[in-house]
Amino acid sequence: MQNKDVSVSVVDELSDYETFRRVYHRHRSGEPFPSGDALLETVNLIRAILFPGYFGNSSIDMNTIRYHVGVNVERLGSILRDQVFSSFCFDSDDVPLEDLRKKSSEVVDVFISKLPQMRQTLITDVEAAYYGDPAAKSFAEIILCYPAIKAISNHRIAHELLLLGVPLIPRMISEMAHSETGIDIHPGAAIGNYFTIDHGTGVVVGETAIIGNHVKIYQGVTLGAKSFELDEFGNPVKNVLRHPIIEDNVIIYSNASILGRITIGEGAVIGGNLWVTSDVEKGAKVIQSKVEK
Amino acid sequence: MQNKDVSVSVVDELSDYETFRRVYHRHRSGEPFPSGDALLETVNLIRAILFPGYFGNSSIDMNTIRYHVGVNVERLGSILRDQVFSSFCFDSDDVPLEDLRKKSSEVVDVFISKLPQMRQTLITDVEAAYYGDPAAKSFAEIILCYPAIKAISNHRIAHELLLLGVPLIPRMISEMAHSETGIDIHPGAAIGNYFTIDHGTGVVVGETAIIGNHVKIYQGVTLGAKSFELDEFGNPVKNVLRHPIIEDNVIIYSNASILGRITIGEGAVIGGNLWVTSDVEKGAKVIQSKVEK
Amino acid sequence: MQNKDVSVSVVDELSDYETFRRVYHRHRSGEPFPSGDALLETVNLIRAILFPGYFGNSSIDMNTIRYHVGVNVERLGSILRDQVFSSFCFDSDDVPLEDLRKKSSEVVDVFISKLPQMRQTLITDVEAAYYGDPAAKSFAEIILCYPAIKAISNHRIAHELLLLGVPLIPRMISEMAHSETGIDIHPGAAIGNYFTIDHGTGVVVGETAIIGNHVKIYQGVTLGAKSFELDEFGNPVKNVLRHPIIEDNVIIYSNASILGRITIGEGAVIGGNLWVTSDVEKGAKVIQSKVEK
Amino acid sequence: MQNKDVSVSVVDELSDYETFRRVYHRHRSGEPFPSGDALLETVNLIRAILFPGYFGNSSIDMNTIRYHVGVNVERLGSILRDQVFSSFCFDSDDVPLEDLRKKSSEVVDVFISKLPQMRQTLITDVEAAYYGDPAAKSFAEIILCYPAIKAISNHRIAHELLLLGVPLIPRMISEMAHSETGIDIHPGAAIGNYFTIDHGTGVVVGETAIIGNHVKIYQGVTLGAKSFELDEFGNPVKNVLRHPIIEDNVIIYSNASILGRITIGEGAVIGGNLWVTSDVEKGAKVIQSKVEK
Amino acid sequence: MQNKDVSVSVVDELSDYETFRRVYHRHRSGEPFPSGDALLETVNLIRAILFPGYFGNSSIDMNTIRYHVGVNVERLGSILRDQVFSSFCFDSDDVPLEDLRKKSSEVVDVFISKLPQMRQTLITDVEAAYYGDPAAKSFAEIILCYPAIKAISNHRIAHELLLLGVPLIPRMISEMAHSETGIDIHPGAAIGNYFTIDHGTGVVVGETAIIGNHVKIYQGVTLGAKSFELDEFGNPVKNVLRHPIIEDNVIIYSNASILGRITIGEGAVIGGNLWVTSDVEKGAKVIQSKVEK
Amino acid sequence: MQNKDVSVSVVDELSDYETFRRVYHRHRSGEPFPSGDALLETVNLIRAILFPGYFGNSSIDMNTIRYHVGVNVERLGSILRDQVFSSFCFDSDDVPLEDLRKKSSEVVDVFISKLPQMRQTLITDVEAAYYGDPAAKSFAEIILCYPAIKAISNHRIAHELLLLGVPLIPRMISEMAHSETGIDIHPGAAIGNYFTIDHGTGVVVGETAIIGNHVKIYQGVTLGAKSFELDEFGNPVKNVLRHPIIEDNVIIYSNASILGRITIGEGAVIGGNLWVTSDVEKGAKVIQSKVEK
Repeated sequence: MQNKDVSVSVVDELSDYETFRRVYHRHRSGEPFPSGDALLETVNLIRAILFPGYFGNSSIDMNTIRYHVGVNVERLGSILRDQVFSSFCFDSDDVPLEDLRKKSSEVVDVFISKLPQMRQTLITDVEAAYYGDPAAKSFAEIILCYPAIKAISNHRIAHELLLLGVPLIPRMISEMAHSETGIDIHPGAAIGNYFTIDHGTGVVVGETAIIGNHVKIYQGVTLGAKSFELDEFGNPVKNVLRHPIIEDNVIIYSNASILGRITIGEGAVIGGNLWVTSDVEKGAKVIQSKVEK
Repeated sequence: MQNKDVSVSVVDELSDYETFRRVYHRHRSGEPFPSGDALLETVNLIRAILFPGYFGNSSIDMNTIRYHVGVNVERLGSILRDQVFSSFCFDSDDVPLEDLRKKSSEVVDVFISKLPQMRQTLITDVEAAYYGDPAAKSFAEIILCYPAIKAISNHRIAHELLLLGVPLIPRMISEMAHSETGIDIHPGAAIGNYFTIDHGTGVVVGETAIIGNHVKIYQGVTLGAKSFELDEFGNPVKNVLRHPIIEDNVIIYSNASILGRITIGEGAVIGGNLWVTSDVEKGAKVIQSKVEK
Repeated sequence: MQNKDVSVSVVDELSDYETFRRVYHRHRSGEPFPSGDALLETVNLIRAILFPGYFGNSSIDMNTIRYHVGVNVERLGSILRDQVFSSFCFDSDDVPLEDLRKKSSEVVDVFISKLPQMRQTLITDVEAAYYGDPAAKSFAEIILCYPAIKAISNHRIAHELLLLGVPLIPRMISEMAHSETGIDIHPGAAIGNYFTIDHGTGVVVGETAIIGNHVKIYQGVTLGAKSFELDEFGNPVKNVLRHPIIEDNVIIYSNASILGRITIGEGAVIGGNLWVTSDVEKGAKVIQSKVEK
Repeated sequence: MQNKDVSVSVVDELSDYETFRRVYHRHRSGEPFPSGDALLETVNLIRAILFPGYFGNSSIDMNTIRYHVGVNVERLGSILRDQVFSSFCFDSDDVPLEDLRKKSSEVVDVFISKLPQMRQTLITDVEAAYYGDPAAKSFAEIILCYPAIKAISNHRIAHELLLLGVPLIPRMISEMAHSETGIDIHPGAAIGNYFTIDHGTGVVVGETAIIGNHVKIYQGVTLGAKSFELDEFGNPVKNVLRHPIIEDNVIIYSNASILGRITIGEGAVIGGNLWVTSDVEKGAKVIQSKVEK
Repeated sequence: MQNKDVSVSVVDELSDYETFRRVYHRHRSGEPFPSGDALLETVNLIRAILFPGYFGNSSIDMNTIRYHVGVNVERLGSILRDQVFSSFCFDSDDVPLEDLRKKSSEVVDVFISKLPQMRQTLITDVEAAYYGDPAAKSFAEIILCYPAIKAISNHRIAHELLLLGVPLIPRMISEMAHSETGIDIHPGAAIGNYFTIDHGTGVVVGETAIIGNHVKIYQGVTLGAKSFELDEFGNPVKNVLRHPIIEDNVIIYSNASILGRITIGEGAVIGGNLWVTSDVEKGAKVIQSKVEK
Repeated sequence: MQNKDVSVSVVDELSDYETFRRVYHRHRSGEPFPSGDALLETVNLIRAILFPGYFGNSSIDMNTIRYHVGVNVERLGSILRDQVFSSFCFDSDDVPLEDLRKKSSEVVDVFISKLPQMRQTLITDVEAAYYGDPAAKSFAEIILCYPAIKAISNHRIAHELLLLGVPLIPRMISEMAHSETGIDIHPGAAIGNYFTIDHGTGVVVGETAIIGNHVKIYQGVTLGAKSFELDEFGNPVKNVLRHPIIEDNVIIYSNASILGRITIGEGAVIGGNLWVTSDVEKGAKVIQSKVEK
């Protein structure tokens, strides 16, 4: 019943290089983009490794944990090497493939060696969530359910890979958490220990933001840029420090927007729904103007 | 190509009890945590039971509906009993397993006996969504697509399980809806009939909130706590009534924050982007301060 | 162990027509509702067709692209015809089934013939995202990761189907993007070229909104209705023009709410967290009132 | 790395109608062949319906069996109607599609109405297997494991469909059993009650064979044709009665070949490895010639 | 389009206890039959454990093998305990469930403790296949492809479980191999080391057969019963020794049938297509009578 | 409940290199064995390419066939290159990996270039099956159902790969057919056009067999070796010509065994159940000795 004449000409038009030339990326010899499914498995493996007993095959005991961790670390290495290799192929047109393979292996080995430290940091985040939320009933509830832990664990993975020079993948991992939790943390952001986010939907943390220890933010908070420079061609200048610095022990309530390379001083409290574009002193309490009834 | 020496020592370190002792939960004899996949199937079965013809095998007629409902109710009972048992094992170290099995069966039987009432309540929510949205074309569109119905149906399931004393699972079911819709309703919240949420992303409803009948809220609305008490050790005191009471026929517009154990009186209207921390009288209209141009 | 007497009577009650009569939809002879899974595959096929090499079997070259596009277009036609047919069955009780089948084929043929134009428009959206975000590293990053592109591509598909008179499906496709990205664009909204949304969580664009070319909006922005008329029975009047018109080159910062059938003039800039309910002149800059510290 | 020139020309050659013209079958408007996967589900549904508690959701009780049977019968009807329709499309070039749809529904309704009788017959086969094998421990072992029951149940399904005039599908169902069990029964064969096959690998029962009640055959037995007529063009003449008639209470031992339209009389016993091409009298014992040592 | 009246009455009839009473098995409180899928995973896990590097995650090295074996043994234990428990429930109506659970655990622990010995025996079978087949190119070819190894490994698993008193499961595992390879070895048969079967289709080895070391048999060989006793009710007497004893170093060529409790003496050779029903002396060569041309 | 002490020591023993040293194969740097699943997909792709419209997406027409063939040929190349590379890694310890990759690509390109010829040959086999079986109703029935076509198509694929020097894979593909059909053809056998096998279970065709054109064999036929030489160490001498030569137009009836490097002359007919170990003249009819009654 299909009108074949139409669809054959549509196929011709859609296959015409000129119609997608502007967004075409020439892959190297059959190497595809990193795969969303593989990165999802990567993240799930890391969660299973870092929080033994909570994810994956969950009836683990002291006799068998080493078997599970060992198998998971090996599988993580195998999958992540392939994905990192794909991302290097995307970004490096002139480097021989064997060099990229070697580099991928080295990068993944370094990444894996950082997992123990990553676990220690994430445990501080779990503790911060537990002690900061009267509704939290147990660590288990936080590790299994809290979107903050999902978003922060993806961020710590993505940030580590970004520091190792891996292209594309960090952003893909951040967006997976963004889609799942509504929390959008750019992998470039540098975040201290004991970080927690309550509820979280709508949170935005920009690429050059710096966050200290023991910081807590609520849903809808933006740590964004006030504006950005354009170069002589009207394009945005990349790599400018344009997001805020949040010092230790700061609390930022829901839907507040902190914009520009400003500093929120240690222990400050920012009220909800505010729009802050200049520095805030240590220990200050910034609150909203009164509402009319 | 992997540097085996590195990865073996990483496995050793990651398997060392001391490195995850702080978040370790000792499971009872091989009983795992409740499973996200099983709870997703649970929720899908309940949707199929409550809205026959909309979900699952959708070509249902009056002759065969009893077969489908019967099979779905039996499967629901079977899956939910296992999950509730897992959650009791998590929470009850000293109770004999057979007692927990019996208790799980009883709890699930009570839960299932409440499904007819749950359907009646959810039908009022569908009607509220339909009559409150000029863009809504049919009940079918609302049942199949509207995030409000997904979030509210998960909430009504989670709330019922919470009342029955089931640990962990209510929060897991709430977070599934939060992830899917951006609407974060704590399972503890008590919500009346004809409840609707428009668009919904960013909505937060806290643990001790009480919502009357015929209430409508828009995206980004927070029904939250203003602050919370700490005990002598600096930990938050649990189970304090700290979220608002919203009486019948209230409308709250987008991004408003209603904070603390305050009461929004019957028929009140709260404007968008507001920050409300004290009681609002019946029938009052609270609107935003003027903006400068 | 289940209490069978309870559950049999529950099945009887849940199968009783009277208990779901209010939301029951009588299907035509065994034709089910459109399927979420099939629509997800539809959207994925369209993404693979429009951005060759980025989705699906990603190692494509100039020799083989026609094979992949051809197979994907054929499969798209086959799946979409069935889904459109289901949606027409839902909406058209009296039309002979064969007529609905024929109409479905025609609609899908027209839809497919518009794919080349849709690609050209989406390429402008990719360019707008790239040139508007200093954090963007490549077109590939935008096409693969950015929620804006996911939401806008679903919207352009849904809008086209809506214009062709297809019921239910456009809204289902929009809600898929809403769930994935937190961006809620009603399929009725008319949106120009070079449209971009930064971060995006919490964005709402209403059914009768009109958006020009080169418009950029940030997370949490609402283009909503101020209120809506009720008819003599207290039901909302459908199809009233009640959402804003955003002219070319407008920027709207995070969490601003633009409400009602007002016009934001060409080149205007709306600050974050604002609540705008009346027209804004061309080129105007609207900013927030000062905050108290 | 692929030699593209070669493979493009291979694709051209393989797509050239002339190269597959001899085996090409022109489908009617997009109707594919019956699907092996759908027929496998068909057979599994029938097994679950006929032997409640053994296959599918196996914890069935008297309260819920009707739900399970109801859902399974409905699903069986739905799948089988589509498959029978495909098979009629294959075979009937000139009949309007709607007529074929109607005919498919009628055929499937008749088929379903014969399931109760089919169950009674298969129960006799289970009993024959149990009472004929000292190694059999229980009816359950026979229903769950014995290849004879798999092969005979597929045969009884296929034979019923053949009698109803359904093309292609009966043979597909027979071959599924052949592949699984090594027992090759042509769907045309007419087989009485209490039929059993021990071990079964290598058994062949031809298209026009007739088997009475209480017949038992062992592995490797052939009930075949001695030769077949050719027509004036050298092609075999179809539909000639060319396979044996096996009367009641016959036993045929392993690897015996019974060839041609001969009759093995009631109660006869045929020894193993024999080659029998003429009638055998009632009650006769046919045994092998002595072997040399 | 379905004739509902017919199908409702068919469902009623098919749900009527009287129509399946003869084959009905009353399950204990919701415990289903052992599952074919779970037993397939069981066998695959055992193959992966016994032949490391050949099955499952096949890139294993000396550093990581312990992780893989550990995870596989734990998973094997977990799955097999559930299956053995199901089989005991099937067979033991009066024993308390907790006793059956404990017994299942004990049986599986013993079974697992025998895996090292099972590996040593299977390695002898691999060697026998390699040294007995001029077409064999490597041990790997034999372990990965040869049906003999599939059938014999399933047999050695099934036989061990049978010795441990596990009902139903041994036969199910044997039939899985029978279906895959055409080789039908009853789990009761006792088989020595260095056993091999060439090609194998059609081989039958009966319940009480005893096979020595270094025995080789070809396709189509039957080690069967000549006849079996009936008891006073006409039912076969179970547990009678009725299959042959094959001593060490015997070779039996294709399609030979060795029937009854006879002994084939050490080193004897039985020619193809023979029918042997009495003892054969050590070292004898039994060959076929001449054929007429 | 598991006895952990036992199972830890079992894991240790099963991980001890000495216990599997005799069958251990040292893989090259992480390259696993060819995968059964990948080879199954390979065979299915080839069937879909060779018989367009019968397998895979079966509603194909003259406009779209090139798209389907193109996508399938590309995917075939991609999968098969990886599998061939794995098999070369298995067999070639000293060759640089890049050389093996290049060789794999070349081999697969040659293999693909032979597909058109393979289609022509297989069409002759389909015709032979159709014209040789009075029960065959259509070419479609033969292509979709007949085990002969499955076994012969796998054989022609496996034989071609064997000729190209690919290790392991040809045997794996042959065994897949053996398992599915009970027909065991060694990939080394050389087989002419218009070859058919009726029923097929139990057929064995040895490594060095040669079969002419228009040959037909029945179930249970063996073309085997009479004996094989041992070398000075007692191992079988490989690569000896030890299987029969079957000339054109020969028919061999069921369960006949043709053994040794003998020649069955053109047009000869071999009766069922025979054991033939010496040459048969052209046109001869060899039949069984009479049976006693």
